[in-house]
Amino acid sequence: MTTSTALKTRPLEGLRVIDLTRALAGPYATLLLAGLGAEVIKIEDPKHGDLARENSPYVGKNGVVIEKQHDDDVSVSHLTRARGKYGISLDLKKPGAQDVFLDLVKTADIVVENFTSGTADRLGVGYEASKAVNPGVIYCSLSGFGATSKEGGKAMDIIIQALSGAMYASGAVNEPPVRIGIPIADMLAPVFSVIGILSALEQRHKTGEGQHIDVSMLGALTSFVAIENWAAMEAAGMQARTGLTVQRLSPFGVFECEDGYIALVAVHEKLARGLFRAMENEKLGEDPRYSNRDARVANANTLEALITAWTSQLPVSEVVSRLEAQGVPVAPVRHPEEAMNDPRVASRNETNPVAHPKYGTVDNFHTAGIPILFSGASTGFDDVLPVHIGEHNEKVLTEMLGYSQEQMQSLMETGVI
Amino acid sequence: MTTSTALKTRPLEGLRVIDLTRALAGPYATLLLAGLGAEVIKIEDPKHGDLARENSPYVGKNGVVIEKQHDDDVSVSHLTRARGKYGISLDLKKPGAQDVFLDLVKTADIVVENFTSGTADRLGVGYEASKAVNPGVIYCSLSGFGATSKEGGKAMDIIIQALSGAMYASGAVNEPPVRIGIPIADMLAPVFSVIGILSALEQRHKTGEGQHIDVSMLGALTSFVAIENWAAMEAAGMQARTGLTVQRLSPFGVFECEDGYIALVAVHEKLARGLFRAMENEKLGEDPRYSNRDARVANANTLEALITAWTSQLPVSEVVSRLEAQGVPVAPVRHPEEAMNDPRVASRNETNPVAHPKYGTVDNFHTAGIPILFSGASTGFDDVLPVHIGEHNEKVLTEMLGYSQEQMQSLMETGVI
Repeated sequence: MTTSTALKTRPLEGLRVIDLTRALAGPYATLLLAGLGAEVIKIEDPKHGDLARENSPYVGKNGVVIEKQHDDDVSVSHLTRARGKYGISLDLKKPGAQDVFLDLVKTADIVVENFTSGTADRLGVGYEASKAVNPGVIYCSLSGFGATSKEGGKAMDIIIQALSGAMYASGAVNEPPVRIGIPIADMLAPVFSVIGILSALEQRHKTGEGQHIDVSMLGALTSFVAIENWAAMEAAGMQARTGLTVQRLSPFGVFECEDGYIALVAVHEKLARGLFRAMENEKLGEDPRYSNRDARVANANTLEALITAWTSQLPVSEVVSRLEAQGVPVAPVRHPEEAMNDPRVASRNETNPVAHPKYGTVDNFHTAGIPILFSGASTGFDDVLPVHIGEHNEKVLTEMLGYSQEQMQSLMETGVI
Repeated sequence: MTTSTALKTRPLEGLRVIDLTRALAGPYATLLLAGLGAEVIKIEDPKHGDLARENSPYVGKNGVVIEKQHDDDVSVSHLTRARGKYGISLDLKKPGAQDVFLDLVKTADIVVENFTSGTADRLGVGYEASKAVNPGVIYCSLSGFGATSKEGGKAMDIIIQALSGAMYASGAVNEPPVRIGIPIADMLAPVFSVIGILSALEQRHKTGEGQHIDVSMLGALTSFVAIENWAAMEAAGMQARTGLTVQRLSPFGVFECEDGYIALVAVHEKLARGLFRAMENEKLGEDPRYSNRDARVANANTLEALITAWTSQLPVSEVVSRLEAQGVPVAPVRHPEEAMNDPRVASRNETNPVAHPKYGTVDNFHTAGIPILFSGASTGFDDVLPVHIGEHNEKVLTEMLGYSQEQMQSLMETGVI
């Protein structure tokens, strides 16, 4: 299942990450680090492991199944998020587990956790404990509201979407808000976590010292929402949300075709003229209602009705090719599956096939890749994944840390691993 | 307008960035680098400058205005995206401009551009030209479909949203797709560009060599969409989009109140019981239709109707406080303005006040901050911003590069700067 693009080295090779994360946000951060070449050691509870292991469907001997049937059937969630990671078991609530964790930290460059705020310290695996054994360690905490927050509780993606304004900003005036169909709050915080970690690595080259990085899901998504000038738009009498089209940029937006939808952008004069030609209605450009940008914005409603009257009679493919021929930016609104099979994307490893370590790839199953191409480095995942909880205990604890067979025996007997 | 959190150093201090970007995607990448401490030198066309300078509204002497009135009125877009950047003018189409650009590159660590694919090379300011004068330079190209693409044309945010599947995944079955109200395609590509740049910096510490980084808007957003297992969901008979609620997790979703909307998550037994108590209808937990998770999913329609009957009679604040009292994850669906004024976010500098260099902050105007907190470093923007095109020509070309007054005179006379 190696998806490295070439035999070039990866940019983060030589760095070791201790991964305390579970679910989606944290594991996506360490997935990015793994794909960039870092060696990731994932720590799981010996009994239950990562929550993502329980997400249906599963992939295994009998292909895709809704209920787990065999010992080596693996949840698609785990299969995709644990790529390129070694997996060890460690019950952080057992005495002695902290020693194992700190032995790992001594050898590491980076630690990542996404417990609820304060939990890592309570378990004895927080930044202070880590720094005491390795002052160079870069320790990243990823949480709902930040490590500075007193609020407990799980910060699910939908809760953060609601609080951030992202839901409100989507959809149409006088319509309900829109739940965005991709988990952007869960995904953005890890992306900023990786930026924080890499920035701290750069600083460590100068100072030799590590530090604590603290990223919140609410902050990451709200900072994105904040790029639009909402107060300025309000001051200028503009709506915070305008549905499928944006009338102040008319013609601009999503239009219904016979068999689907397309998005088009024809804000500027040349593009608007191109649209009218594609509509075989070139004289619209001479109509005082549509002959310049201000007029088109003022008459956006009737203009949009004319466009819809045209698009709704034609298939998506026809509308797209007619507009492309006129140089008007246009795209079909695609199903996610179509999107991730796009050869432009798959060939750049921006999406990757899903593969079971033992049973190989699954037809048409795709997952997130590393959407960055390096001229002097490769990206991709080592051929390693913990199918079973604690699968790499021997590799990590004996080979890497040098634990004796007696120590391993004792850790197993006491249920620490 | 310095928004540094402390007097600590910033993690990327000492790095110099040459910034050829315009509009949103590219400038957001260099904005993140500036906020992390890099010195950014923004290059603008002497005549028109960055497109973002023309976006209404403007801020200046008379506060917020829709049309530019004074020479130092600045578009809110430019005011927020050019923070912490030096600005010089350079007409890349004039002979001699390449020499100035390459003199800058000789002193730089990083170059970022977001011209359409191939344009930078054509202008003589691409990676090969840059590498020839500085083999250590890390040169990042940000484009719609990637530097490997033959497709020209502008890749606007809405086009990429349509192609990536993100639009399709949002909204309800049998309803149109949803244009997401924040420019996620424009914003994600720069975030991955920064990860690429910082990863290449890490590699440079080992090799001494720079490289070319190539990030596409389509790839960045599609990789996000790809984290959900769409083919697996389809194989399992699940819809790609389910609107405001997700019935397979019921009760889960957005519900209408008397004066707005809330999001709630009560998937697990304890949370569902908490919801029923908040509804003052505890006996629902004994009703065989709602007494366990499978039953609730099977009867999601009637359960959602019961919840809406309750929420729709009460204000948002009341529903939120009743659910919070029962430990059920809940949040109001907030307007973006309310979100960016949240003290949890503002106090962490995840959003920043908007300020004009001469006229100060604007009431209630907020913009994107750096959503990463470092224990051993600060973030924030130097008190510098090119109000006028070429404002820092003297500072950059004379002071930093050591150009003589004769050289400056000649560059001005020939219209190069």
